[in-house]
Amino acid sequence: MATAGKVIKCKAAVAWEAGKPLSIEEVEVAPPQAMEVRVKILYTALCHTDVYFWEAKGQTPVFPRILGHEAGGIVESFGEGVTELVPGDHVLPVFTGECKDCAHCKSEESNLCDLLRINVDRGVMIGDGESRFTINGKPIFHFVGTSTFSEYTVIHVGCLAKINPEAPLDKVCVLSCGISTGLGATLNVAKPKKGSTVAIFGLGAVGLSAMEGAKMAGASRIIGVDLNPEKYEQAKKFGCTDFVNPKDHTKPVQEVLVEMTNGGVDRAVECTGNVNAMISAFECVHDGWGVAVLVGVPHKEAVFKTHPMNFLNERTLKGTFFGNYKPRTDLPEVVEMYMRKELEVEKFITHSVPFSQINTAFDLMLKGEGLRCVMRMGE
Amino acid sequence: MATAGKVIKCKAAVAWEAGKPLSIEEVEVAPPQAMEVRVKILYTALCHTDVYFWEAKGQTPVFPRILGHEAGGIVESFGEGVTELVPGDHVLPVFTGECKDCAHCKSEESNLCDLLRINVDRGVMIGDGESRFTINGKPIFHFVGTSTFSEYTVIHVGCLAKINPEAPLDKVCVLSCGISTGLGATLNVAKPKKGSTVAIFGLGAVGLSAMEGAKMAGASRIIGVDLNPEKYEQAKKFGCTDFVNPKDHTKPVQEVLVEMTNGGVDRAVECTGNVNAMISAFECVHDGWGVAVLVGVPHKEAVFKTHPMNFLNERTLKGTFFGNYKPRTDLPEVVEMYMRKELEVEKFITHSVPFSQINTAFDLMLKGEGLRCVMRMGE
Repeated sequence: MATAGKVIKCKAAVAWEAGKPLSIEEVEVAPPQAMEVRVKILYTALCHTDVYFWEAKGQTPVFPRILGHEAGGIVESFGEGVTELVPGDHVLPVFTGECKDCAHCKSEESNLCDLLRINVDRGVMIGDGESRFTINGKPIFHFVGTSTFSEYTVIHVGCLAKINPEAPLDKVCVLSCGISTGLGATLNVAKPKKGSTVAIFGLGAVGLSAMEGAKMAGASRIIGVDLNPEKYEQAKKFGCTDFVNPKDHTKPVQEVLVEMTNGGVDRAVECTGNVNAMISAFECVHDGWGVAVLVGVPHKEAVFKTHPMNFLNERTLKGTFFGNYKPRTDLPEVVEMYMRKELEVEKFITHSVPFSQINTAFDLMLKGEGLRCVMRMGE
Repeated sequence: MATAGKVIKCKAAVAWEAGKPLSIEEVEVAPPQAMEVRVKILYTALCHTDVYFWEAKGQTPVFPRILGHEAGGIVESFGEGVTELVPGDHVLPVFTGECKDCAHCKSEESNLCDLLRINVDRGVMIGDGESRFTINGKPIFHFVGTSTFSEYTVIHVGCLAKINPEAPLDKVCVLSCGISTGLGATLNVAKPKKGSTVAIFGLGAVGLSAMEGAKMAGASRIIGVDLNPEKYEQAKKFGCTDFVNPKDHTKPVQEVLVEMTNGGVDRAVECTGNVNAMISAFECVHDGWGVAVLVGVPHKEAVFKTHPMNFLNERTLKGTFFGNYKPRTDLPEVVEMYMRKELEVEKFITHSVPFSQINTAFDLMLKGEGLRCVMRMGE
C-alpha cells in the first residue's frame, strides 16, 4: 500500500485526562515495527472497560491515552516477522493476546498468554516500549494493546484475530470483547447440558451474552438476577425465563434460587464483579454437580468467603477470562457462529453513532442506556 | 441358610460411651427387613471417622453404638425387595449409599444419593427407624448404616457393593472408605495429566491414596505437604518425589510451592480438613489450568477465604465426597484395579489384629502409628 512504511495522519479520540470528554484530534500513527500490524479501524464499540480506565478512579492515571478495544478493521501494513497477515485481511483486535509459544498458549485449557496477557497499565508497545501515536511529536499512550478509538492503530500480531472477510465488520466488531467473554463463559466453561437450569447474575452485555450461550446450549430454564427490574424485558430476548431481583427478598438470593429450583441451579454465571454476587452465584448451585463460573472482575480488596462444606458437597467454582477463548485460534470460529446464524449479535447493538460523536456513546453507557453503541469511523 | 429369618447371636465391639474402650459383647442381630441385607463381616479396618465419632467431641452423643464402616463380608440373608444380592455374595459395606433412583444417582456426576447419603447422627435403620442390634432386648445404635464392628450386621442394600468373589477380603476391605476416597479424588476429580505436577496436602491414608492415584495417572512430580517430617519416607512408596513441611518456611506454603514449580502445580488435593490447608491447596495451583480438590472434612465453623482474582485467573476449586465413586456402580471396578495389580493395597495395611484386640487398633490410630489396621473377625 502507498502508506506502508510511512507515518499516517488520521483522526483519533484522545482522552487527555481522567473523566474529561474525549477530544477528536489529528494524530500521527507510526509504521508497525517487528511483530506489529497497522490496522485501519472501520468500526469500534464502547465497552465498560474503556469507561473504567477513562474514569481512572483509584488507578495510576495513564494520560493522554487513546482508549478503545472492541473493534473491527482491515490490515494496512505489517512489520518484520509477521507472517500470518497481509494487507486487506479483516481482523478483530483483542485486548489480550496469543503468542502461540508460551506454556499457556500451548495448553489446551488456558488463554492467559504469558507474553500478551492483558496489561491495563502499559501504555506503550511491548517490542520497544514506545508509543506509535504522537501529536506534534509528543507521545500519546496506548490502551490494552489495541487503542481502537483511532482511524489507524498499531497492534501486536498476537492480538489480532483474522476473520472471514465476508463477515460484516459493523456487526462482528462487538465480538472482540464483551460478547465473546459472556458467551464463552457459558459455552466453554459452565457447559450447561440440554434441559438444564442456569442462573445469570448481572444482565449487562456480558451477562446477556452468557445468557445467549445458555440458550444456545439448550438450557430449559434461565434465571436472570439483577437489581434493576427493567432488565427483565430486554433479557427475555436472550432467553430469560425467570427474573429474580435480590431487593425483592429478605433472605439471601442464593436461598431464593435454591427454593425456586428444588435444590439449586445446575450452572451459575456471575457477570457483575460484586463479591457478594459471586458468593451467591456459588452457593445457589446444586450439590453433586453444580458449577459456578466467575466472569465479573472484582474489587482489588474483595474477599470471597464460603463454608468449605459447600465445596465438599461436590460443587465446582471456576473463573474465566475472555470466555476461555484463545484470541487468534478461537475468535474466527465465534464469527462463523454469527455467519451460520447460530449467534445473533444485532440485538446487542442498540446504538450506532458517527465516530465524531464518541462522547454520546460514553453518555449512553454512563446512563446505563442500551448495550452496545457502535461508532462508524470516518464519519 | 439355616440362620435366615432368625435372630443371630454373635460378638460385637460396643462403644458404651464416648472415649471409653470398646467392649466385646454378645449381641442379638435381628433378621433383615425390606431392602436390607444381613452380612457376615470377615474383616474390618479402623478409619479416623470411627475414632472421631467414638470421641464424640462437640457432637450429640449416640451411645451405646456399634461403630465400624471399612469392611468386607459375605451376604447371609436378605429382606423383601432385595433382588441384586443372594447369600454367599461377597460385598463391601459403604458408609454412603446409592438408591439408583434419585436425581443424584441418575446424574453421571454425583454420588450424593438423596436417600442413602451419609448420616452420622442416625443410629437406626432408615426403613423403620429401629435398630437391628440388641443386648438383652435393649437396642444398640447403628453407625453410618454399616456398623461393621460386629460379626453380623444389617445394612441397606443400597450401601453394599457386590464385588468379585476372588478378591481377598482381608485386603480389599480397606477399599470401602479411605483408600477409595483419596484415589477417586485424584483419578475422578483432579484428573492430572501424564507428566503433570501434583501436590498432596496431608499424608495420612487418604492423602497417600490420593498420591497413589497421581502416580497411577502418570504424574511426574508429586509433592507431599505435611507438618510431620517423618511422613516423607513412607510417602516415597506412594510416589512422593518432593516433600514440603510448612513449618520449615516463613512464607505461606502456597508461595513455596509456586516458586518450586515455576508458577504453581497442575493439581492439588487437600486431605487434612484444615481450612488453611484448603486455602493453600487452592492458591498453589497454576493459573490458566490449575485444579484444586478438597477431600478433608472441615470444622463446622471454618470459612474458606481467598481473593476472587485467584478464580478469575482460570483456576478451579472442586470438592469431592468418597472420591466421586458411586458405591454400588463404581466400587466393584476399584476392586478390579486391585485384581489387575494396577492398585496396590497391601502397603496401606500396616497392622492386623484379632477382632478381640480392637482397642489396640484404636491405640495405634490415636498414636498416629501406621495407616490401616485390619481386624480379623472370629479371632
